[in-house]
Amino acid sequence: MSDRLLYLPLGGAGEIGMNCYAYGYGPVGQERFVVVDLGVTFPSMDGTPGVDLIFADVQWLEERKDRIDAIFITHAHEDHVGAVGHLWPRLDAPIYARAFTAHIARLKFEEHGHDELQIRTVAAWPETVAAGPFTVGFLPVSHSIPESSALVIDSPAGRVIHTGDFKLDENPVVGEPFDRELWESVSAQGVKALVCDSTNVFSPHPGRSESEVVGPITELVASLDGLVAATTFASNIARVRTLAEAGTKAGRSVVLLGRAMRRMITAAIETGIINDFPKTVAPENAADIPHENLMLLTTGSQGEHRAATAQLSRGKYLGLKLAEGDTVIFSSKTIPGNEISVARILNNFSEMGVDTITGRDEYHVSGHANRPDLALLHEIVRPDVVVPMHGEHRHLREHAKLAAEGGFRAIVAPNGVGVDLAGEAPRVSEYVETGRTYLDGSVQIGALDGIVRDRVRMSMNGLVVATVIIEDDEPLGDCWCELRGLPEAGLSRAPLVDVLEEDVNQFLMRAGKKTLSDEDRLEEEMRRIIRKTVQDEVGKKPEVQIVISRLSS
Amino acid sequence: MSDRLLYLPLGGAGEIGMNCYAYGYGPVGQERFVVVDLGVTFPSMDGTPGVDLIFADVQWLEERKDRIDAIFITHAHEDHVGAVGHLWPRLDAPIYARAFTAHIARLKFEEHGHDELQIRTVAAWPETVAAGPFTVGFLPVSHSIPESSALVIDSPAGRVIHTGDFKLDENPVVGEPFDRELWESVSAQGVKALVCDSTNVFSPHPGRSESEVVGPITELVASLDGLVAATTFASNIARVRTLAEAGTKAGRSVVLLGRAMRRMITAAIETGIINDFPKTVAPENAADIPHENLMLLTTGSQGEHRAATAQLSRGKYLGLKLAEGDTVIFSSKTIPGNEISVARILNNFSEMGVDTITGRDEYHVSGHANRPDLALLHEIVRPDVVVPMHGEHRHLREHAKLAAEGGFRAIVAPNGVGVDLAGEAPRVSEYVETGRTYLDGSVQIGALDGIVRDRVRMSMNGLVVATVIIEDDEPLGDCWCELRGLPEAGLSRAPLVDVLEEDVNQFLMRAGKKTLSDEDRLEEEMRRIIRKTVQDEVGKKPEVQIVISRLSS
Repeated sequence: MSDRLLYLPLGGAGEIGMNCYAYGYGPVGQERFVVVDLGVTFPSMDGTPGVDLIFADVQWLEERKDRIDAIFITHAHEDHVGAVGHLWPRLDAPIYARAFTAHIARLKFEEHGHDELQIRTVAAWPETVAAGPFTVGFLPVSHSIPESSALVIDSPAGRVIHTGDFKLDENPVVGEPFDRELWESVSAQGVKALVCDSTNVFSPHPGRSESEVVGPITELVASLDGLVAATTFASNIARVRTLAEAGTKAGRSVVLLGRAMRRMITAAIETGIINDFPKTVAPENAADIPHENLMLLTTGSQGEHRAATAQLSRGKYLGLKLAEGDTVIFSSKTIPGNEISVARILNNFSEMGVDTITGRDEYHVSGHANRPDLALLHEIVRPDVVVPMHGEHRHLREHAKLAAEGGFRAIVAPNGVGVDLAGEAPRVSEYVETGRTYLDGSVQIGALDGIVRDRVRMSMNGLVVATVIIEDDEPLGDCWCELRGLPEAGLSRAPLVDVLEEDVNQFLMRAGKKTLSDEDRLEEEMRRIIRKTVQDEVGKKPEVQIVISRLSS
Repeated sequence: MSDRLLYLPLGGAGEIGMNCYAYGYGPVGQERFVVVDLGVTFPSMDGTPGVDLIFADVQWLEERKDRIDAIFITHAHEDHVGAVGHLWPRLDAPIYARAFTAHIARLKFEEHGHDELQIRTVAAWPETVAAGPFTVGFLPVSHSIPESSALVIDSPAGRVIHTGDFKLDENPVVGEPFDRELWESVSAQGVKALVCDSTNVFSPHPGRSESEVVGPITELVASLDGLVAATTFASNIARVRTLAEAGTKAGRSVVLLGRAMRRMITAAIETGIINDFPKTVAPENAADIPHENLMLLTTGSQGEHRAATAQLSRGKYLGLKLAEGDTVIFSSKTIPGNEISVARILNNFSEMGVDTITGRDEYHVSGHANRPDLALLHEIVRPDVVVPMHGEHRHLREHAKLAAEGGFRAIVAPNGVGVDLAGEAPRVSEYVETGRTYLDGSVQIGALDGIVRDRVRMSMNGLVVATVIIEDDEPLGDCWCELRGLPEAGLSRAPLVDVLEEDVNQFLMRAGKKTLSDEDRLEEEMRRIIRKTVQDEVGKKPEVQIVISRLSS
């Protein structure tokens, strides 16, 4: 049997976020692996209440951990690096990243008490890392965070370029511009597969450069009276600097509000990404400065409840209180699913009389390549096959169509579908059961373990706890019920708990020894009666917890 | 004391949806009232899990029900008429509406077994209804449902125009065009207040006519092979007819899928709104027709889980199964908050190889007046004051700014803020505690009753039920615990339930008579131990239900 060059997405090919990809090379079942990205996605009340973080289920990799030679992180966004602290112990291979990314990864290792020496800093292409049968280099590409890189993954079966997240920006304000000549030279020897970001495949116009927002933001801030607060992703160092410089130019004191904001700027300075960030004022000194002289840069552009922007919208925060005449700029686009949280903040500010500027293209550009940019990259790289990644299924499918329109072979491989890239044409050669792992408090649980499902059911249906003591196969006293999350009374107007207890007690009085002595049957009957009564009274079928306590005299 | 002309929003001025407004006239505390609209808003897992419907809390009105002379419904959208069946018994006043709206309201009364004679059909202006000190007429206005009407509310203190939902469409395809001259004539005698829809105040361009989508939709359907399904709001009779006619013109059999789709078209035919709806094929006969000859019109454009579109995306529905080569058209805009549900459907179709067309302006126009249209209506009516309604706070505030730009006085009055319009200038003269009522199963509960809060807490934190039997102030046997929605094991790797029981039992053994005999104290101590143990083991603070059973020997 010949060697496979396996591409296997475990996360990110079926959603935007939670990136996690494996590449394998070798005979079937004996491949050596490298892993690309260990990202997270975020939970929501709709589906994952109480969950803290979500990452790809890496069990398949964990079972092959002795064959993993390295983990590569393309860039420091949470959906690419966010799970390193949580998942690394299960994979136990060295992590390679460029300086800024490695810095962020080390902060996460520090929080978990892992050995930071496991994270190794690599310079940009042409430097490479040998990892088993692979040689891997970091090819700079523009995005919305410093040092984003595509990976050049060489194997005996040929070269794969894994783009990571990217856009084609020749003037990204901070960091490396997209270098078309460099990409052409790397592609010149022939590329087996271009594994390519699909996020913006539905955006029809060519992407705009980060530099295009500098003028409008500067003019906007100069035009405003009162306090100005601006929110954007803290990791978009270019944007944060543009905003800070706009504030400084307008004669304002600049304040970084929110932990991520300070951490990211510190990381950028410490790793030499920027050395000219405007002077800032400590948050604790901001309250003394008149509003018209202040410019706040705040976390929470996606409406995060605990971030600085949301805190400011709810009232006083670190002694600062916004008021009529002040303005909050959202230098961001709201990610689908976050609209309600963002709207809540906008309405809070509206109630305070604070103006908000949001959803305006002049003050934000995307970090991802749009449809024409993707087509251009296909042309630059001219791979044997385009493999769309990082997208929901519809993005992957549309991206494959786009590649086909350009005359390229393309294959849609969602999470769990392993593609052998070694031969003439790509070929599905593996199906792996994939899924999601939830961080629930401090514990990792499986998405299908039923734990979150039980919580969702309680939140939909409410709960009845019914307790009965059985002594010598006779009920000892009455059954009693406790309700949680159910209306107090229904159709009959009597308290629901009274109606329930009466119905269950009547059943217990009538029940014979056979039923009372049979744990399963007793439970089942009690559950049935309770569900029926609650359904009749209030129109809901509750979750039921039966507690039977047996005594013998 | 002089008479007030009170405008009091109870719902809709603080959200888009759930419209409910009261107008009062008379001396303070003795006003006679009319109610405008009894709408609903929809629950979400994020905040209101398990809730079936949400409407305005009408307790304030209910306490004054003997002073309510009439209820007027502007149009038949659910956020204006959806609560009539649920709330009417609490207000007990005759309901007035135009024929189509009355038809829909009667269907709701039928479901509830209310007296349908309480719903009275009124013709358009100049017909009016006398209601206490008020005379009220239905002024036709274009929107996205037939017979939408503004209300002309005359009182001894002057005329108020309450727009309901509207757009300025001179060619709405079905129903009455916006008639500027009529509006001018009604406004000519002077208008005290224009109470005006704010939904689209942030849309900067003039609104487009419903007629603009006819050509593009017809061309699109003609250009497609395979089955075509199209989804839109069933109540948008003009759009549904446009889609149906596009299907018929393309030689396709048209099928209405989904209960609301059939009910709305039937209502439109029965009330004489349309008499030329294309011939349709019954859903049960659709499966026999080749895909290329079929056009489905489906409910569920907002991603509703049980609607026809979602059903089709999950597989076979009424014998129909979409496949590669088929196309689903979303002739709609996704309402904020529904993005994830809609995306789920789009991805399901993508996995089937079915193409989707969505978010395209050519195939959808909004039913609401945009910013320049609002300014134009202010100019047409030239009221003494503009009172923005139907919008979140930010919409109301922005609308007030727009009115001020046009030289009009404006006042922002969110839910619960009563404005006296009688004098020279509007004046806040009442604060009413407002809120939301949830339909939970078959029962109405208050948003602040704590019932849904308890459910949300269980969904976030999980639940421990701990039971102990106390006989003569001594524990009888061990305490035992049941877990719901919690990880099975944590830090110590032992089953969480075992760790919990051990910790509680150790406490019970050590506890003195004083604690064991004191119900509150025992519960509190057990709760504290359980929460601490779960926090230590799995990092979550669960909800706790303690069941103490007392026996005496």
